[in-house]
Amino acid sequence: MSFEPLKGVRVLDLTSVVVGPVCTWRLSQYGAEVVKVESPEGDLMRGLGGLSPTGQHSGAYLHFNRGKRNICLDLKKKGAREAIDKLIASADVIVANMRPQALERLGLDAATVRARHPDKIYCLITGYGTDGPYSGLPTYDSVVQGATGMAGLMLARDGAPAYVPLLICDHVAGEIAAGAILAAVVERKSSGAGCSIEVPMFETMAAFVLQEHLAQQSFDPPVGPPGDLRLLSPHNKPIQTADGWISFTINTDPQVRAFLKATDRQELLDDPRFSSVAARARNVAQWFEVRGAPLTSRTTEQWLQILRAADIAVQPCHTLDSLPRDPHLEAVGLIDFEDHPTEGRTAAIRSSIRFEDAYPARRSPAQPRGADTRGLLAELGYDADAISALLSDGAAQATPQT
Amino acid sequence: MSFEPLKGVRVLDLTSVVVGPVCTWRLSQYGAEVVKVESPEGDLMRGLGGLSPTGQHSGAYLHFNRGKRNICLDLKKKGAREAIDKLIASADVIVANMRPQALERLGLDAATVRARHPDKIYCLITGYGTDGPYSGLPTYDSVVQGATGMAGLMLARDGAPAYVPLLICDHVAGEIAAGAILAAVVERKSSGAGCSIEVPMFETMAAFVLQEHLAQQSFDPPVGPPGDLRLLSPHNKPIQTADGWISFTINTDPQVRAFLKATDRQELLDDPRFSSVAARARNVAQWFEVRGAPLTSRTTEQWLQILRAADIAVQPCHTLDSLPRDPHLEAVGLIDFEDHPTEGRTAAIRSSIRFEDAYPARRSPAQPRGADTRGLLAELGYDADAISALLSDGAAQATPQT
Repeated sequence: MSFEPLKGVRVLDLTSVVVGPVCTWRLSQYGAEVVKVESPEGDLMRGLGGLSPTGQHSGAYLHFNRGKRNICLDLKKKGAREAIDKLIASADVIVANMRPQALERLGLDAATVRARHPDKIYCLITGYGTDGPYSGLPTYDSVVQGATGMAGLMLARDGAPAYVPLLICDHVAGEIAAGAILAAVVERKSSGAGCSIEVPMFETMAAFVLQEHLAQQSFDPPVGPPGDLRLLSPHNKPIQTADGWISFTINTDPQVRAFLKATDRQELLDDPRFSSVAARARNVAQWFEVRGAPLTSRTTEQWLQILRAADIAVQPCHTLDSLPRDPHLEAVGLIDFEDHPTEGRTAAIRSSIRFEDAYPARRSPAQPRGADTRGLLAELGYDADAISALLSDGAAQATPQT
Repeated sequence: MSFEPLKGVRVLDLTSVVVGPVCTWRLSQYGAEVVKVESPEGDLMRGLGGLSPTGQHSGAYLHFNRGKRNICLDLKKKGAREAIDKLIASADVIVANMRPQALERLGLDAATVRARHPDKIYCLITGYGTDGPYSGLPTYDSVVQGATGMAGLMLARDGAPAYVPLLICDHVAGEIAAGAILAAVVERKSSGAGCSIEVPMFETMAAFVLQEHLAQQSFDPPVGPPGDLRLLSPHNKPIQTADGWISFTINTDPQVRAFLKATDRQELLDDPRFSSVAARARNVAQWFEVRGAPLTSRTTEQWLQILRAADIAVQPCHTLDSLPRDPHLEAVGLIDFEDHPTEGRTAAIRSSIRFEDAYPARRSPAQPRGADTRGLLAELGYDADAISALLSDGAAQATPQT
């Protein structure tokens, strides 16, 4: 039995690039019918996200846009504005990540939409919210990483600022926005009320960083400098083995004792610097030095056996080449292949989450721009002549062009 | 008007450390009544998460456990097991992040609980799911970072593996789990059905990494190596100014032209290597070299003015010292201070998300272990004598000890 709690919930997706598409992809995993509105210029991620057979469906684009129908409209044209008004009327949820000013110019901002449709859920994902000094500024993932101190964490640890090599702010804020929309759907199920939701990436990810790293500055007066000192220790890193790298963490006292024995450092077993969680927190630099010493006397596989026998959390460090071939991921079937309309065989990454012992049903691959333009316009009540008029005017585009 | 879609939804929180507490914290933001069950040994994060006046409420503990009531039970004692059965009966949602074997030993696994209470939503957050070769192995955030290739991304970019200095896998999987529970609440509102949810951290974060970085290997045959080459370029980093570091990203053609003009590199304006998104993707190494050159001729403030005038996304790079004093965060009031029962004045990080132009109501600070033991036992129907018996047996503990 498939888990589709959002079945029958239509999401009008006015987003592009990453943060918005992640949000609506997650909603589609839960059964929502997502209609992605794409401009004739196309979503930047189609090309920017990497190479693809046609140049139109980068891997990132594919994975973030599964399970969505696609209509291509030129919102600068009057005919497209009428079509989008019909799409809004037919939707339960509208998600946008354009800048607030651009939405207002188009009359697609939350206030305008909800004045006519108070029962809609409207989620606006912005860089910096709709007030405060940064409001309305453009942003991208790496800029938010800099602004939220993520790059500064690397500076503190490594001596040079660096980005997390993931679209971490976009990706996480998109997941959080999906949760906020689900919360609003719960409310609407109870009270029937719509809701305007605003998810500012900068504040959201600043809160994310500060929850972890405000640390000693969470107190007035502060009890020390900010920062989780364990995470900021240069010794907190993967450990080199004879033939690779492993990751392990040792937190509890029994794990620490087992680790010291397994690595032939019995002399530290009764060292008061390391004898309790509190003691190791006080002596974090020295503890991480012990923990972070290379283990080149044995191979990764040998260390995995020894440390797992001591109930220590340990894994090999994967690379992008080895990760998709991880034996656990292969056994549970995280990645499968399917046929894409234009790109041949493409990878489908399924939901990692099981509901009632089953994964959500696999949905359609990410569609070419305008693949559903004709079908969606027909569903909105446009007849064949009206659709042709929109297409010939350029207000709508369909793929394949016919 | 406060947004509390989960008002009246009781969440029994059997979690500790980070991933589970993040999940239930997020649910509390949406109005759920969260009851955290803590062991007499206490949640590891109370001490491990950093210093605090009493040593019992690290910053991370405080921020991830806001808005929860706290009952302290020793589940090895019979009296505590009876109390937990009553708590389960009174709850709508149960969240656990113990290992599956431990939950089964306690009779607190999803199958046992839902056999008696099929209408409950039960979310199990695990390291590695309940099948596949890694099932049941212990894990921690950094181990998942290694196993999902995050450390390997740093190896690919920087020549040495390193962790993201955040509890990124715990923190993100916790947010995603909260979304999954919200989806199950939507289902329950519609059909009345409960649900067993399983969120395996490894698969969830492997999917997260692969969505971004499977890239050219998303195709069969592959069109190139895995990896988002923009993110893996060593030139994709904050840029040094005369007095600090700035972050900016330039994606569109108009932004590129504005940037080249502002940085006095007019000679590149007509360079075909950089003239379009596709051209820059093909020449990503050279493009990032242009983009990544130091800008030490002007100060951060001067560059902010110049680049913002060109509508380029740019921000200064914050450190943990400067982030809480960011003028935008101060203007919108992300952090406020409140009185904590044992730690004096403590920081309260509010929700970054607005609903109907208001932030969710601030809820209680994270409570001392057992702060609500007496009150919750009384609500479950225990009279004063029965409560005293549980306390004197050690099946329950209350703080302050009286």
